[in-house]
Amino acid sequence: MRDAFHEDLDTITDQLVEMTRLAGSAMARATTALIDADVHLAESVIAADDELDAIREKLDALSIDLLARQQPVATDLRIVVTSMRMSSDLERMGDLARHVAKVARLRYPEKAIPAALVGQVVEMGQVAERIVAKAGSVIASKDTEAALQLEREDDDMDELHRRLFAALLAERGVYEPETIVDLTLLGRYYERFADHAVSVARRVVFLVTGEFQREELDHESVEDDREARLLG
Amino acid sequence: MRDAFHEDLDTITDQLVEMTRLAGSAMARATTALIDADVHLAESVIAADDELDAIREKLDALSIDLLARQQPVATDLRIVVTSMRMSSDLERMGDLARHVAKVARLRYPEKAIPAALVGQVVEMGQVAERIVAKAGSVIASKDTEAALQLEREDDDMDELHRRLFAALLAERGVYEPETIVDLTLLGRYYERFADHAVSVARRVVFLVTGEFQREELDHESVEDDREARLLG
Repeated sequence: MRDAFHEDLDTITDQLVEMTRLAGSAMARATTALIDADVHLAESVIAADDELDAIREKLDALSIDLLARQQPVATDLRIVVTSMRMSSDLERMGDLARHVAKVARLRYPEKAIPAALVGQVVEMGQVAERIVAKAGSVIASKDTEAALQLEREDDDMDELHRRLFAALLAERGVYEPETIVDLTLLGRYYERFADHAVSVARRVVFLVTGEFQREELDHESVEDDREARLLG
Repeated sequence: MRDAFHEDLDTITDQLVEMTRLAGSAMARATTALIDADVHLAESVIAADDELDAIREKLDALSIDLLARQQPVATDLRIVVTSMRMSSDLERMGDLARHVAKVARLRYPEKAIPAALVGQVVEMGQVAERIVAKAGSVIASKDTEAALQLEREDDDMDELHRRLFAALLAERGVYEPETIVDLTLLGRYYERFADHAVSVARRVVFLVTGEFQREELDHESVEDDREARLLG
């Protein structure tokens, strides 16, 4: 039998996994809305973000309540605090999916993505889906080996992002300024989505291995690593 | 006499104010580095971000320690948890200043900003400085009236951001794709910097007025409000 405290922790874990599912679904549908210029799908992604926000609010309320009632220390305290940070990452991932959907809505009935760049955006969407699904598995399994796989997905996102910029800059005079603006922002949304997924996985690793403070440094370093490779 | 717990809370408040000072200084210097194509200044901004990260780490360690040792409930618990969120906002603001500095470094010895757009970027830098200074005052004073003033600064940032996009898009064929990419990212860095400052101020307001959960929704709404106005 689990005690009430650990049952609450299980609930938190389940809800975090559910948040990864919702964020992944949102990003997948946002990408489709973008490619197909499907404004109804875009609207549904934008509206559905409320659900993710609501789960995050409930999770945070539960965590605060746990802190007040159970006054956990040591590992249990770290789990609760880290869970609040994971829910923050996941809520932000939902925001980023919504941003992608808003670009689709803004340009409707036009397509925001020129035909020559559709393949790259589709691939970024696929990597985003994979990385958040893996983040969900890591939260559920606490498997630190699986957590490392997210770094590879993140490398793939880097590579796609670099190729997208290269394509935008290589074709001088081909793309309208609006297209360059849209693709620059979209590239950043997909990149940050992957960053937050890696951050979630690293938080799990550091919970398991007990190195608490490192997670923040490493969240930072996700972006630093990428910048170094992208901007050289 | 303050007890040990409240002395620790005072320390946290002081350090949060110090973080606003460092973030403001970083953004001011990053803007100068960008306008002047001053690579040494840009490097110093990039290096100085470690200091902000270190304060955030120490603050979080102190907060966790407070939770474990003092096991605060009710208002005291909310203050500690909210402080952790404010330090996260402020650390992120430092990251955004560093991003601005990195654009300056990337384009050196060229200037990233065309002469026609310098005035607008300078103004965004000035608003960023003002808004973070006001966030510092609000943290120190807990003055909810002063907190509302940040919303007006944020409106000014919106307006500047909208004008920057309009200028970029109006001048077809004038700006190189690199310039459009840089300005799109820079616009987003300044905008997010202001968002996080507003978020800090709103967290103080909700601590004072006791509406705890609203802060998250409202952090979200900073970006939503802006998007609605920018993108229509």
